[in-house]
Amino acid sequence: MNHEPRTKKAVILLSGGLDSTTVLAIAKQAGFEVYALSFKYGQRHEIEIIAAQNVAKSMGVSGHKIAEIDLRIFGGSALTADIDVPKERHVNPAHIPITYVPARNTIFLSFALAYAETIGAFDIFIGANAIDYSGYPDCRPEYIQAFENMANLATAASIEDKGKFKIHTPLIEMSKADIIKTGLSLGVDYSITTSCYDPSPTGTPCGKCDSCTLRLKGFKDNGMEDPVL
Amino acid sequence: MNHEPRTKKAVILLSGGLDSTTVLAIAKQAGFEVYALSFKYGQRHEIEIIAAQNVAKSMGVSGHKIAEIDLRIFGGSALTADIDVPKERHVNPAHIPITYVPARNTIFLSFALAYAETIGAFDIFIGANAIDYSGYPDCRPEYIQAFENMANLATAASIEDKGKFKIHTPLIEMSKADIIKTGLSLGVDYSITTSCYDPSPTGTPCGKCDSCTLRLKGFKDNGMEDPVL
Repeated sequence: MNHEPRTKKAVILLSGGLDSTTVLAIAKQAGFEVYALSFKYGQRHEIEIIAAQNVAKSMGVSGHKIAEIDLRIFGGSALTADIDVPKERHVNPAHIPITYVPARNTIFLSFALAYAETIGAFDIFIGANAIDYSGYPDCRPEYIQAFENMANLATAASIEDKGKFKIHTPLIEMSKADIIKTGLSLGVDYSITTSCYDPSPTGTPCGKCDSCTLRLKGFKDNGMEDPVL
Repeated sequence: MNHEPRTKKAVILLSGGLDSTTVLAIAKQAGFEVYALSFKYGQRHEIEIIAAQNVAKSMGVSGHKIAEIDLRIFGGSALTADIDVPKERHVNPAHIPITYVPARNTIFLSFALAYAETIGAFDIFIGANAIDYSGYPDCRPEYIQAFENMANLATAASIEDKGKFKIHTPLIEMSKADIIKTGLSLGVDYSITTSCYDPSPTGTPCGKCDSCTLRLKGFKDNGMEDPVL
């Protein structure tokens, strides 16, 4: 007799950074069988991929796909084109920072949707954050909701009425300090994560970019030092 | 003095097939400066890319990007995985055909959105068709509308209030015969297009798959023969 409920599968967008690693821990804690999806997207820091692989391995995912997509063909961002990453905190919320990559989360979520559909998952987790974020339009709750609405019209699964897609954003209203606190309570090892926009060739974080600054402050707010800085 | 209105740019998803080639002609006719976007997505028929390049060149686009994305990592479709393409017309609209590629149009439109944003375009054209289509969920008008809504929340351009994205689907209510008629009236040379799901290694269409069958009928309805079959 086999009456136990089947574990639900979820796809987690995993960059190997602090946020997405925390999201993976949250999805596991919620009882999902987790499948990670990472991207090689022509970013300067392929060190991210190594971090994502380490995180996926250490946290026991059921699958990990790495999609290669070359966003450099479009240019338009300090993260993918030959533009210097700014070394001061971005403070003007009315202006989109140069580290914004056009349509990045839309592309990432689209691939996550394809992955989810092929494995029969209806739950997608992304570490979007609307509090400490750097002014990215595709981290706002209204954007996430619009993507979810679209996903539920986009797929064979939605026509065949097998389920309803849900985009989970457990970090969306959390401060960086709260994210770190949550991750620590779930046993996340932040020493294997990487967040820097502009690391050295060997992967050492710069300690100065938006991403490093936010992360440093988050650990400080928890009365700790960042294990990678 | 420079008072003439600036030409509006548009991104056109171009597979090199009959539909997208007609869409390119329609966008040009409407006065847009056209930028084509094609994909190498692990499809069996890279002959599509050659056709897209020939079409782009012969129709005078201002730019043509070819994005490499490997959808084979997910599998799940006869067009990207090692599954035979069916050789009979798909007739059951309640069942999604095996040639459906999970989330394909969502991924394609996401890249088009990135391209549009980097060149300052707000108009995206796609050859989606809801009449002669083969039961794909992501060819329905309600899906296209949902993508457009999402796109207008996804981008820096939408926050900075520079314009509003519009997904154009000029073929959505046309029969294949009407599409061909429209294209011919705009001077489209269909001999350089390719539509077959399962061509020979040298690019000869099979004449039997869904896509070939629809195309043959479309020419026949115009009292013509398909120039490639």
